[in-house]
Amino acid sequence: MNFAVIKRTLGWILLFEVVFLLIPAVTAVVYWEKEFFSILITMLLCAAVGGLCLIGKTKNTSLYAKEGFVIVALSWIFMSLFGALPFWLSGAIPSYIDALFETVSGFTTTGATILATGEAVEGMAKSLLMWRSFTHWVGGMGVLVLIMAFLPLSGARNMNLMKAESPGPSVSKLVPKVRTTAIILYAIYSAMTVLQFILLLCGGMPVFDALNTAFATAGTGGFAIRADGFAGYSPYTQVVVTVFMLLFSINFNSYYFLLKGKIKEVFTTEVKVFLGIVFAAILMITLNVLATPSEVYDYNVGEAIRHSAFSVASVISTTGFSTENFDLWPAFSKTMLVILMFIGACAGSTGGGMKVSRFLILYKGVTHDMKRMLHPRQVKKITIDKHVVEHEVVRSVNAYVVAYVFLFVASLLLISLDGQDLVTNFTAVVATINNIGPGLNKVGPAGNFAFFSIPSKLVFIFNMLAGRLELFPMLLLFAPATWRK
Amino acid sequence: MNFAVIKRTLGWILLFEVVFLLIPAVTAVVYWEKEFFSILITMLLCAAVGGLCLIGKTKNTSLYAKEGFVIVALSWIFMSLFGALPFWLSGAIPSYIDALFETVSGFTTTGATILATGEAVEGMAKSLLMWRSFTHWVGGMGVLVLIMAFLPLSGARNMNLMKAESPGPSVSKLVPKVRTTAIILYAIYSAMTVLQFILLLCGGMPVFDALNTAFATAGTGGFAIRADGFAGYSPYTQVVVTVFMLLFSINFNSYYFLLKGKIKEVFTTEVKVFLGIVFAAILMITLNVLATPSEVYDYNVGEAIRHSAFSVASVISTTGFSTENFDLWPAFSKTMLVILMFIGACAGSTGGGMKVSRFLILYKGVTHDMKRMLHPRQVKKITIDKHVVEHEVVRSVNAYVVAYVFLFVASLLLISLDGQDLVTNFTAVVATINNIGPGLNKVGPAGNFAFFSIPSKLVFIFNMLAGRLELFPMLLLFAPATWRK
Repeated sequence: MNFAVIKRTLGWILLFEVVFLLIPAVTAVVYWEKEFFSILITMLLCAAVGGLCLIGKTKNTSLYAKEGFVIVALSWIFMSLFGALPFWLSGAIPSYIDALFETVSGFTTTGATILATGEAVEGMAKSLLMWRSFTHWVGGMGVLVLIMAFLPLSGARNMNLMKAESPGPSVSKLVPKVRTTAIILYAIYSAMTVLQFILLLCGGMPVFDALNTAFATAGTGGFAIRADGFAGYSPYTQVVVTVFMLLFSINFNSYYFLLKGKIKEVFTTEVKVFLGIVFAAILMITLNVLATPSEVYDYNVGEAIRHSAFSVASVISTTGFSTENFDLWPAFSKTMLVILMFIGACAGSTGGGMKVSRFLILYKGVTHDMKRMLHPRQVKKITIDKHVVEHEVVRSVNAYVVAYVFLFVASLLLISLDGQDLVTNFTAVVATINNIGPGLNKVGPAGNFAFFSIPSKLVFIFNMLAGRLELFPMLLLFAPATWRK
Repeated sequence: MNFAVIKRTLGWILLFEVVFLLIPAVTAVVYWEKEFFSILITMLLCAAVGGLCLIGKTKNTSLYAKEGFVIVALSWIFMSLFGALPFWLSGAIPSYIDALFETVSGFTTTGATILATGEAVEGMAKSLLMWRSFTHWVGGMGVLVLIMAFLPLSGARNMNLMKAESPGPSVSKLVPKVRTTAIILYAIYSAMTVLQFILLLCGGMPVFDALNTAFATAGTGGFAIRADGFAGYSPYTQVVVTVFMLLFSINFNSYYFLLKGKIKEVFTTEVKVFLGIVFAAILMITLNVLATPSEVYDYNVGEAIRHSAFSVASVISTTGFSTENFDLWPAFSKTMLVILMFIGACAGSTGGGMKVSRFLILYKGVTHDMKRMLHPRQVKKITIDKHVVEHEVVRSVNAYVVAYVFLFVASLLLISLDGQDLVTNFTAVVATINNIGPGLNKVGPAGNFAFFSIPSKLVFIFNMLAGRLELFPMLLLFAPATWRK
């Protein structure tokens, strides 16, 4: 294990965090808030510790798969440990574990909150709300990808980091140079964020709200700054957010090819399947909600479509915003939404979940194996978009699913010790491991995670990080083989 | 597709069903019940249709994997379609779909019932109750395995059938001849059933109750003949049933090696892990139940151990008997039981679920892959009990898990249209696909499946068959490639 290179990268992470903290710091100055000081202290601490990590020259910069996983996991943990300080030091969130939960929920773009009441959300200082939303933006595309865009590191080194931080079963470089790929990705990401910000302003949204919403949507995060989420905003705003939640769930490669004019490569099988699932789910939920008599809601057709589209986009993109409390919808709609929570967004997007491409590979794999059962002698390869899916990729997807199931079950069992009902427990694990935010029942769109015990919150913190980093970086931290020479 | 050989096997299945029906027929005579006639009509129908299928010589007896799957699936479907007739013709179950549900639940050793009340169970004719219990016994070890024990077919042919009907990721013949293996398995099965019957009689259980209980336990079925399940029987009886539920969940190969005196081969890794899970679960549930104050139960230590052991054995063996309504236990205990429902029994036993050996292979597979992530150049093979687990087996286990998840999700979505709550829906699918019987909430130990709509019942019927036959025989029925030339 090359500890020197790990220390060095962690140093850079903390220095970058100083820059990130400028956003809430400036907000605090603009709104003249006393939270400025807790943000400043955090910045100084990050700068000091980060600077210490960078003292001395690192001779051996070699970085293998092993170091890649460890660096990514530790980067996210350190970034969160320091990022939680403004909430805690300012007294906005009195418990450090709660502040850490909120920060991890931010960076991992989960959007689950421990703020127990609407007043607690709306009463929070604007600078802290801005920090909460901005953590989504940083976490969405990934902090190591950002560092790669700025620091000229060796190619091989970057690829191992990018593999470990990027979502999806396989990573493809857009251009031969990893650094250029990182720059392109962040450029598209920033441009789309700005576009959404402008469109929200056009709808009459206040600047502060529009900025927060744009950050939280871009990262497919889900922290809302109003007690009623998006219910109070205009239908125009809701539609804009719906569209952008979906746009940020699509593989960013597609946008690159769109800019290049290669239309054929924009609509990959994954994108088509993703859009197919989205439209089918919206249709089915709209019909189900309209067909089921209810005492708690009464939608006309337009409202039903708008709310079901918003909820589907929110859940499959793993953002977690809400206009309506879908926990009150009929069983079929709720089941559909929970299933979408597992599926998640496209690979290479800012969304979470298991990713459409993984399900595609799993589906192709099982139909392939069923054909082999019928005709054992015919061996064909699995292909997607006319590319052969390498056996290694199929294998790693299977390993991912199995690890996912084991982690899921272990988490469920641990948090069930709190004695909450099964639906709350199950969907709380679903919502954290898939980086969504809300689940059903007590953790539904109208609920929160405040009532869980500290051990359960630690489980959720681990799950959110594991979910965002696609399990293995976090799991391997606990494997003795990682630390063995 | 060799249709002649399929027709011939179906003919034999129906003739064997005539023999099976002798058991309830004799019961009807003993208790002088008018249900005798509906049983007799069913026997005549089976004999007529079965005889018709056997007319003519089958020249081409070749049977490939494809035919193996189709024969197994169709055998179980036909056996159930005819087996449902006594319930329906006698008027005991007025709806044929309900009667079919009950029969499939019997043959697949699920034990889920559509009998809505305790009176409906206790009021049923003894001959029909006996048929219900006996279907468990037939389904437990498998009807095709039984036919193989009697009919001298070619070796290759039998192996394809045995593979498709036997539970577990891989089938090993105990002796070179498939027929002898089948005879040994049924001999052990019968001997253990008789032993349990005698032990139950020793505890003062009436002969009729003891016979039914022995049949239902041996097949790990779960149909009870009393409204309160096993709550009303003595602690001695409950302990005997607990022990035998566990014994019938262990790979029958272990008993063969026990008889042969090869003690080392009795305790395979699977058996050790199975027993480890059982004891850990009993311990944890006992502690959880004792530590959680409740208004609905008040156990002393001995009762807590007895009820938790009974429930754990009932659920992991996928039998589904109950002494206590575990739906009223605390969240941790319920979560634990639901997890055990998925795990299920050992391969090569009469129990259902995903099987301990599959989880073992999945666990070994994922840790193996994690090691490969750290050290990509070290390639070692996965071993269990010092045998290399062939890549084909790992692959088929992965295919099984993926198919399982897809079937599970599709079923959940379909039955959610009935509008029941999520816990009822989720555990109803768990309980049918894993051949357990009861789930939680409305389908808990105190509930039943009567209230579901006909489409939902058809989904459950499919799930029970798919679960018992380990998915692929049922799924391949719907694959166009199966029927293509």
